[in-house]
Amino acid sequence: MKHKVIIDTDPGIDDTMAIFFAFLHPQIDVIGLTSVFGNVEVEKTARNALVLAEMANQNIPVCKGAAGPFLHPKPGYAKFVHGEEGFGTVAAMEPKGQLDPRHSAQFIVDMANQYPGELVIAAIGPLTNLAIALQLDPSIVDKVKQVVIMGGAATVPGNITPVAEANIWNDAHAAKMVFEASWDTVMFGLDITNNLRFNQAFLDKLTDGNAKLGKFIDETSQFYMDFYSQDTEDRACCFHDATPLAYLVAPELFDIKLGKMVVSTDELTRGQTAFCHKDKGFRPPWDSGPYSKVALGVDKAALTQLYIDTFAG
Amino acid sequence: MKHKVIIDTDPGIDDTMAIFFAFLHPQIDVIGLTSVFGNVEVEKTARNALVLAEMANQNIPVCKGAAGPFLHPKPGYAKFVHGEEGFGTVAAMEPKGQLDPRHSAQFIVDMANQYPGELVIAAIGPLTNLAIALQLDPSIVDKVKQVVIMGGAATVPGNITPVAEANIWNDAHAAKMVFEASWDTVMFGLDITNNLRFNQAFLDKLTDGNAKLGKFIDETSQFYMDFYSQDTEDRACCFHDATPLAYLVAPELFDIKLGKMVVSTDELTRGQTAFCHKDKGFRPPWDSGPYSKVALGVDKAALTQLYIDTFAG
Repeated sequence: MKHKVIIDTDPGIDDTMAIFFAFLHPQIDVIGLTSVFGNVEVEKTARNALVLAEMANQNIPVCKGAAGPFLHPKPGYAKFVHGEEGFGTVAAMEPKGQLDPRHSAQFIVDMANQYPGELVIAAIGPLTNLAIALQLDPSIVDKVKQVVIMGGAATVPGNITPVAEANIWNDAHAAKMVFEASWDTVMFGLDITNNLRFNQAFLDKLTDGNAKLGKFIDETSQFYMDFYSQDTEDRACCFHDATPLAYLVAPELFDIKLGKMVVSTDELTRGQTAFCHKDKGFRPPWDSGPYSKVALGVDKAALTQLYIDTFAG
Repeated sequence: MKHKVIIDTDPGIDDTMAIFFAFLHPQIDVIGLTSVFGNVEVEKTARNALVLAEMANQNIPVCKGAAGPFLHPKPGYAKFVHGEEGFGTVAAMEPKGQLDPRHSAQFIVDMANQYPGELVIAAIGPLTNLAIALQLDPSIVDKVKQVVIMGGAATVPGNITPVAEANIWNDAHAAKMVFEASWDTVMFGLDITNNLRFNQAFLDKLTDGNAKLGKFIDETSQFYMDFYSQDTEDRACCFHDATPLAYLVAPELFDIKLGKMVVSTDELTRGQTAFCHKDKGFRPPWDSGPYSKVALGVDKAALTQLYIDTFAG
C-alpha cells in the first residue's frame, strides 16, 4: 500500500533531496507537487519543482502557490543558503511542460476530496498554501490522513532568529492556522534535523545509486555545504526537508511525542514553536488540544542507510 | 456607465437593504453575490443571498465562502441582532436554484481578471473572502477598481467591544490583510452609520416604492429595530451595510478622508481600526502607506432620499 503524497515545497536544495527520495521510494506515490514562496520566489520554486519532476520523469501536476505570507511585511528569501535560483550555483533550467493551472491550495483541496482518508501532505516550506486550503474547504481537516511538516524548533534554538526556524518564521500566522487545525500533524524540526548532517561521502553514495538524480543533488549541494560549514571543519549539510518523507516509510526510526504546539505571531518571537508534552500539567492554553506530534529523536545511521538504499533502488 | 459590483455579504438584515438597493439602482450592475460567515453561519448567509437574488429576479452567481476567521477561536455570530436564520423573525426560506460551485474568494479572483480595472467589491461582512482572494491571486490588487467596505470605527467607539466594530472584529487578521494591500479601499464605519437611523416611516416609503422588496425589508427589520431601540424611545435601526453601495452612485454625499488605517490583532483591542490622517505627521507606522479612505461625514437627508427614490424606481 503506497502513501499518496502531495509535497508542498519551495525548492530549494534540501527540497530536491526530499522530492527525489519520495519519487524513488517504492512505498511513496507522489501525486503532485505544490510550490510556495520561501527559499526563493514562488515563480522560481514553481519552475524548479516542475524541472525536478521532469528530471525524474514524473508526469504529475505541479502547481504554483502563495507568493508571500499572510501578514508579515514581505517574504524572507534564503538565497544565501539556496542560491539566487534555488539550486545553489547551478544555473536556472527551464521546464519543457506547463504548470497545472490551479493554485497550490486548490490542488490540495481537490486531492483531499478525491482521496478522503488517504492523502498525506508533506509540507516542507512555509505553510501558507495549507492555511489557504483550510479556508477554501474546512472539511479537509477530516479528509487529510496526515500532515508531515519540516519546520519549527520545539526544544532547540532557531536558525533565522534565536527562537524561530525559517519555514515557520516565513509565515507564522499560516503555521498557527495549520497547527491549530484538528488534523494529524507531525513536526520534524531543528530538534532532529540540525543533527542530521551529511558529507561528501554520502553524496557520492547517492550518485553511485542513481547517477542522474544523485549527481544533481551533489552539484546543487556544494553551495549549500559552504553555508553549513562556515563555523566548522566538518564539511557537511543538513537535508532537513527529506526527514518527514523518510518518516512516512520508516516511522520506527523516530521518537515521536504528542502535545500542544503554540506558534508565536508576536513581533519578537515570530515563528517560535513552543511545545508542551500532553501530560505535562501546565496551565491553559498548554493543557488542551488540538495536539500535534513532534519528532524529538531519530536513528541517524538507519536514516542515512534508508536514503542510500532508496537512491540505489 | 454602470458600476460592476460584487457584494461580499453575510445576510443579514442590513445586508438585505444593501443588496436590494444595489439591485434596484440603475447605475449598479451586481455581477455576483459572495457570501461569508458573520451575522449567521455561512451555510445560512449563502442560502439567504441566493434567496434574495431570486426574490429580486436576479439570475447571477451566488457563492459560498469562508466559514470562519483565519485565527480567532470561532465565528462570533450576531443572532441577537439578525435572528437565528439571518432574517429577524422571518422564517428561513429555501432557494429554488443552486449556488455557484466556486468559493467566494475564487469568484472574486475570476471576476477581477475578467474585468480588470472595472470590478468594485462591496464588502459588507467580515473580510475573510477578500483576504483569501489576495492570496490566491495577488495581482488582483492592481485589477480591482475599488473596495468599498462597511466596517470599522475610525473615530468612535465600537459596537462589539469598546473599540471594535463587528465585521472587522470577526476576522481582524483578514481586515489587516485587506487594509494593508495597495488597492483603493474606502471604509464606511460606525463613524457615520451609527447616525444613519431609519424609522418605520422610512420603511413604509420603501414598501410604497417597491411592494415586494420593500415589504421584505420592513418585515425582517422589525426584530432588528427591537435591538436598535433597546436604550431609546426613538424606534429605528441602522442600515450600515447599504452605505458603501450608496457611495458608489452618490459619492458627493460623503466626506472622505485619506490616511493610514491600522487594524489591531491584539487580544484586547482585536479589530480596532485606528485611523491617522495622511498629513498628520505622526511617527511610523502612521506616516506611510498604503493609505485608505474613510468616510467621516454624510448628508443624511440626501442619502435617505436616495434610498427612497431608488426603491420607487
